[in-house]
Amino acid sequence: MKVIVDLCVVPMGVGVSVSQYVAECQDVLQEAGLKHQLHAYGTNIEGDWDEVFAAIKRCHERVHAIGAPRITTSIKVGTRTDREQSIQEKIDSVTERKN
Amino acid sequence: MKVIVDLCVVPMGVGVSVSQYVAECQDVLQEAGLKHQLHAYGTNIEGDWDEVFAAIKRCHERVHAIGAPRITTSIKVGTRTDREQSIQEKIDSVTERKN
Amino acid sequence: MKVIVDLCVVPMGVGVSVSQYVAECQDVLQEAGLKHQLHAYGTNIEGDWDEVFAAIKRCHERVHAIGAPRITTSIKVGTRTDREQSIQEKIDSVTERKN
Amino acid sequence: MKVIVDLCVVPMGVGVSVSQYVAECQDVLQEAGLKHQLHAYGTNIEGDWDEVFAAIKRCHERVHAIGAPRITTSIKVGTRTDREQSIQEKIDSVTERKN
Repeated sequence: MKVIVDLCVVPMGVGVSVSQYVAECQDVLQEAGLKHQLHAYGTNIEGDWDEVFAAIKRCHERVHAIGAPRITTSIKVGTRTDREQSIQEKIDSVTERKN
Repeated sequence: MKVIVDLCVVPMGVGVSVSQYVAECQDVLQEAGLKHQLHAYGTNIEGDWDEVFAAIKRCHERVHAIGAPRITTSIKVGTRTDREQSIQEKIDSVTERKN
Repeated sequence: MKVIVDLCVVPMGVGVSVSQYVAECQDVLQEAGLKHQLHAYGTNIEGDWDEVFAAIKRCHERVHAIGAPRITTSIKVGTRTDREQSIQEKIDSVTERKN
Repeated sequence: MKVIVDLCVVPMGVGVSVSQYVAECQDVLQEAGLKHQLHAYGTNIEGDWDEVFAAIKRCHERVHAIGAPRITTSIKVGTRTDREQSIQEKIDSVTERKN
């Protein structure tokens, strides 16, 4: 089942700067070979449900491993049976309406 | 890895009333034997990461199967390595401070 | 405009235990006279859009005031023009389907 | 109070394609003169708390006005007192760590 996900991993108990932990998650997604796009409040990810959620689990494991005792993550996940849609097609479907 | 999750499954393309689809997800969680508590904007779930996310995937499969062509779901997932905490303990940790 | 909101305020830079800050937000909602219901991963709130969002702003101000240098909050907000629905009616619309 | 927000407005009861409604929200943000950046699962917005949340309210009003009987929106909102940070600075703080 194909998904488009928005992932926002927030480590707790590690101070105010969390970019190091977000960068670690980018590495996990890169290693998984998943198409992903960082933005200011999360990362869009595109791929197969099992591969994407396995990578999200590894993000939690790695962020704990590099020192975060607690994590709160928010995930938005979209699936559809009427047609497949990529990250770029979702963006284009909006921007094309505005031109 | 133990998780506490908040799950909100929103079917699209099925009209304004979605309670039938939310009830289907409650059945999935019940069948999975996962501790869960419905509230007005989602369901708290407690359990092992793999079991909880397998059930979330089944929710998408079942909601599609009963007629929703598209689904957007928001998930909050918490993990911690300092100690284990149940749904009730999380609630009590706040209410005890207010008494 | 009437809303039903789910609010989850997460202070950052204050260690792993955040119940004190969540309790402060409960006080803000209480003082605002807003109907609200705590659960394990947030608080359901019911009321007028302006009153609810004014209270959410005050939550951020108060949580900063008691020592959190950074806050990340997730909010789900629902509005509808077809009919009004309370927190309890939303829950009942699902539980009645399962009996 | 300065905020960075991630906004995802989902109209319900209007079929599977929602790009028309997301485009309407982009117009609202444009008219408000707010710095904003669309991605595949929402829009990052930067600005003053009151201006940003007034625009979010207008998004709901306009999406209802063009035919959506129900809306469920998810918002992530970040505030901090230790320093100001723009949308681009948040992204750079992660990408710089990976180079």
